[in-house]
Amino acid sequence: MDIGFIGLGHMGQAMARNLLKSGFKVTGWDRTRSHAEALREYGAMVADTQAGACTGEVVITMLADDRAVEDVVLGSGRMIRALRENAIHVSMSTITVALSEELTQAHRTAGQHFVAAPVFGRPEAAAAAQLYVVAAGEAEPVDRCQPLFDAMGQKTFVLGASPPGANLVKLGGNFLIASVIECLGEAIALMRKADVPAPRFLEILTESLFSAPVYKTYGRLIVEEKYQPAGFRMPLALKDIRSVLAAAEAEAVPMPVASLIHDHFLTQVARGNDDLDWSALALLAAENAGLEPPAFKATPSAASGSEHS
Amino acid sequence: MDIGFIGLGHMGQAMARNLLKSGFKVTGWDRTRSHAEALREYGAMVADTQAGACTGEVVITMLADDRAVEDVVLGSGRMIRALRENAIHVSMSTITVALSEELTQAHRTAGQHFVAAPVFGRPEAAAAAQLYVVAAGEAEPVDRCQPLFDAMGQKTFVLGASPPGANLVKLGGNFLIASVIECLGEAIALMRKADVPAPRFLEILTESLFSAPVYKTYGRLIVEEKYQPAGFRMPLALKDIRSVLAAAEAEAVPMPVASLIHDHFLTQVARGNDDLDWSALALLAAENAGLEPPAFKATPSAASGSEHS
Amino acid sequence: MDIGFIGLGHMGQAMARNLLKSGFKVTGWDRTRSHAEALREYGAMVADTQAGACTGEVVITMLADDRAVEDVVLGSGRMIRALRENAIHVSMSTITVALSEELTQAHRTAGQHFVAAPVFGRPEAAAAAQLYVVAAGEAEPVDRCQPLFDAMGQKTFVLGASPPGANLVKLGGNFLIASVIECLGEAIALMRKADVPAPRFLEILTESLFSAPVYKTYGRLIVEEKYQPAGFRMPLALKDIRSVLAAAEAEAVPMPVASLIHDHFLTQVARGNDDLDWSALALLAAENAGLEPPAFKATPSAASGSEHS
Amino acid sequence: MDIGFIGLGHMGQAMARNLLKSGFKVTGWDRTRSHAEALREYGAMVADTQAGACTGEVVITMLADDRAVEDVVLGSGRMIRALRENAIHVSMSTITVALSEELTQAHRTAGQHFVAAPVFGRPEAAAAAQLYVVAAGEAEPVDRCQPLFDAMGQKTFVLGASPPGANLVKLGGNFLIASVIECLGEAIALMRKADVPAPRFLEILTESLFSAPVYKTYGRLIVEEKYQPAGFRMPLALKDIRSVLAAAEAEAVPMPVASLIHDHFLTQVARGNDDLDWSALALLAAENAGLEPPAFKATPSAASGSEHS
Repeated sequence: MDIGFIGLGHMGQAMARNLLKSGFKVTGWDRTRSHAEALREYGAMVADTQAGACTGEVVITMLADDRAVEDVVLGSGRMIRALRENAIHVSMSTITVALSEELTQAHRTAGQHFVAAPVFGRPEAAAAAQLYVVAAGEAEPVDRCQPLFDAMGQKTFVLGASPPGANLVKLGGNFLIASVIECLGEAIALMRKADVPAPRFLEILTESLFSAPVYKTYGRLIVEEKYQPAGFRMPLALKDIRSVLAAAEAEAVPMPVASLIHDHFLTQVARGNDDLDWSALALLAAENAGLEPPAFKATPSAASGSEHS
Repeated sequence: MDIGFIGLGHMGQAMARNLLKSGFKVTGWDRTRSHAEALREYGAMVADTQAGACTGEVVITMLADDRAVEDVVLGSGRMIRALRENAIHVSMSTITVALSEELTQAHRTAGQHFVAAPVFGRPEAAAAAQLYVVAAGEAEPVDRCQPLFDAMGQKTFVLGASPPGANLVKLGGNFLIASVIECLGEAIALMRKADVPAPRFLEILTESLFSAPVYKTYGRLIVEEKYQPAGFRMPLALKDIRSVLAAAEAEAVPMPVASLIHDHFLTQVARGNDDLDWSALALLAAENAGLEPPAFKATPSAASGSEHS
Repeated sequence: MDIGFIGLGHMGQAMARNLLKSGFKVTGWDRTRSHAEALREYGAMVADTQAGACTGEVVITMLADDRAVEDVVLGSGRMIRALRENAIHVSMSTITVALSEELTQAHRTAGQHFVAAPVFGRPEAAAAAQLYVVAAGEAEPVDRCQPLFDAMGQKTFVLGASPPGANLVKLGGNFLIASVIECLGEAIALMRKADVPAPRFLEILTESLFSAPVYKTYGRLIVEEKYQPAGFRMPLALKDIRSVLAAAEAEAVPMPVASLIHDHFLTQVARGNDDLDWSALALLAAENAGLEPPAFKATPSAASGSEHS
Repeated sequence: MDIGFIGLGHMGQAMARNLLKSGFKVTGWDRTRSHAEALREYGAMVADTQAGACTGEVVITMLADDRAVEDVVLGSGRMIRALRENAIHVSMSTITVALSEELTQAHRTAGQHFVAAPVFGRPEAAAAAQLYVVAAGEAEPVDRCQPLFDAMGQKTFVLGASPPGANLVKLGGNFLIASVIECLGEAIALMRKADVPAPRFLEILTESLFSAPVYKTYGRLIVEEKYQPAGFRMPLALKDIRSVLAAAEAEAVPMPVASLIHDHFLTQVARGNDDLDWSALALLAAENAGLEPPAFKATPSAASGSEHS
């Protein structure tokens, strides 16, 4: 199967490599040419234009936000024109429900298929082909993509025929991750000020009722105050919560904790903490409790982050 | 080892039975005589007075709130006078940090030992001897109590020499459970209104990043809207969050999600939903989203709840 | 001066009548023809098309939301084409900062003037020519409009050359009104449950530190639980707070009370309370405190509301 | 009339002077002897003991918090023993509803009268005899005190026979003042980042719907970022909101904005900003929006604050 891959940042790069490892033929494209070139040594071809990455049976997009996806599909690059009939666009980024609806319609009109297949997992999980994939779309194209998902992830959840559902599940999941970060941040700040050792508190949690990856992964980052380099940068976290709230508004569902977390992400962005990992919600909780900031705040390093949760 | 057991409601009853099964000699007492009598067929003795349950080496309390514990230890019943020197008071209820500090001091002054050993687990877990115990106090008495903890729980976490630390960990844990309920409630309301099947959403969560008992247990209750009979009643949940906020205030730690959850529990109590399980935080989220209430709201049953989380 | 007036609902109708009373020649248009016809007896002409209301020196719009304004100016009706060079579009509705920026640019490109002049005041104030006008735009066209503002309002605040500033001030003001409603609602619920007479509480406030129209007007509505007929309907209040939050997001300003109020408006809309006045934020506070709902909730009347605050 | 005055800080000092000016005979006492001595030159006598200030017909307390009042009345000083039969204790500080209930009962049992008469107004208003007094208690003793209230304030609101009602009204009022500060802080941060001049925004507000002292006084402090010296210090503001929430909890009234504001005061205290005026809630809003802090934050001055709102 010939696959185009558009968007080769931290996440996309790792995912495309796993496709290559599994024997798929991949043609990459990225706005930043060097990102695409980096894939060449793993056996990929590099397209000179976006359209050049849209000639195969499937094209995957893994981009930063709605605007980037909209531009690639409907804008200047015009995937919608370049893609052949019956070909599949697999959108694996975290996009809004509204854009997913628009793309579903646009590809259908063009005689193409749209599959939403957002993923859970940070860059390390992407590199290890340990992502969780939530896929939705018509049954036939989703089936055709299953081998690709197998190459990139540890498990695929097929949700149903309507692509926006998968995007909503992903957004709901990201809200829940953010809520774990926020709440662990508040609880750990309390433990610290009361002289209960934070690592021991976390251990008790994760060896009893909270024995899930999300508590282990984020709990460790918070306890170690390891907010750099960012696995998932603040502005992207803010964008995701904004997308959750947009979906909630469209359905008339008040989500007060989501609103609160939104304001905390916005605070971090307003304060210039763009380069911190989203787990630094907990840093805000600690600062608001008057705890000393971790060392890196004194000597800011040149952090560079990536795009996934 | 001779053990006194004061407080034989849902939780205490189950825990005392497990002590008896493991061969300990137990003398029970409860304000409601029939609760104590119920234990007799499992081999317990029943004390006529509180003081009568305080004659052994260890006395365990498993009571509803601070007031009850305060009354038993320092008030009319006067455990503090009845208990012999070097005996141990093991407090397994969820009490405030402030009371734990007071009891630590009072027992020390009286030449006795105080061990705080609050537990995680609902009545089903108590019955199955599957509780998690978080114990703190001086090493020697904690060691002496270990066989008791083994008889009642699946795992004991020994925290340190200061009993209030264990109470704070328990309160922090309860806050985190409540936050999971609230956030699942908000997310599931969104899925429902957007026609994503809630059970499928929950399945995706618990088979990926959220594979912990807390998401499975409470997620199922929320998806099934099974808020009665209550495993842990609203007023007790409200009390626990109030205790979290009191500890946070004492340490000057703002906990905005805890404040928000507090207000939601208070809303449920104000609206007369005392008999619902605390997972019915999610019912409030659903109602605020305009979702139809579950059937039981139309025909209220006579629910009876118990006291633990 | 020949004036076109587009949007003749509760607010627009009253404002246009005051222009006619002051001797201005007004040509009205409304999507609902009967609204425009209602103005004829006051001396207005009625245009058959939107463009027909755009032939004078000034055209005023007083419409429900961004979508309506966008449609009138840039969409099907095409005010932007119909308006002559150097003519002025005075936008008096509460619109977003983003749309105001777009309109400023569009009219400038077309050689026309754009003045943002949103108003404070409910329908009664509009009828009595007691509105407060906040105007922004280039000095010359704002000056030309001053006689119009004098005919409709009691006071005009000229803000500066940039129209979006006036829209932001209006949105900020509406946020503050909503916050007064919410906070009075919470405080009055507390007084009621504690048996302090609510009217007396309000009297003490408004005769001391809180002696402003906003406390008197909304305090009375809340104390009397007079949420119908709506002076400003819930969905419009929700829209305005959404616009506040959009502006705040664009400037990276967290506004936690605005977020909280947004969720409360959304709750009222989700619960089907579209026809209540926005002061019924206080009804939510009362219900969440377990207070008995006012009589109208039992026998819902056919309420009809209007569009301004 | 012989009056004792206990508590001669910023507020009490000014109030006692106004009593002296009006010809009342005042005997002062303060924990800090020099505060009492300062009153001597205005014609007061200075008591050597608390009891020495309790020999007249009326004794007024104006103290920092519940603990101080409790200590003076029921504790070591024992006003309750020193006060003669039929004498009146007028409590003018902001205390909790619970303590007010306790004092009502205690004085009644002792054959004395208790009048709660908390005040609205900052130290400037106290100095100018421009306070607002909210008085509650039995009619006869309240009447007897009216000349005193006239000497200290511009207006007295008599609420009813139950003293705790006056304390609740005062707490409700302080909550509303705090909400004005918080919301103005959020709105003004938005205006600043959007380049709308904050003084002009405030002017528009206070010359239209928000023409009340509370918006003028606090708006000016926020616009000028004049948070020192404190008219009402952060820890006292935190205490008052805590008292509001305690009353709300007792009556089962959720007050989400009060909870939010509580967390913001707690944040300011946790961050070491005890010496700032409570209007510096707005400083937190500004900092969270990434605005530059005002100059005094760089070179902290030795601020000293006082105790009233």
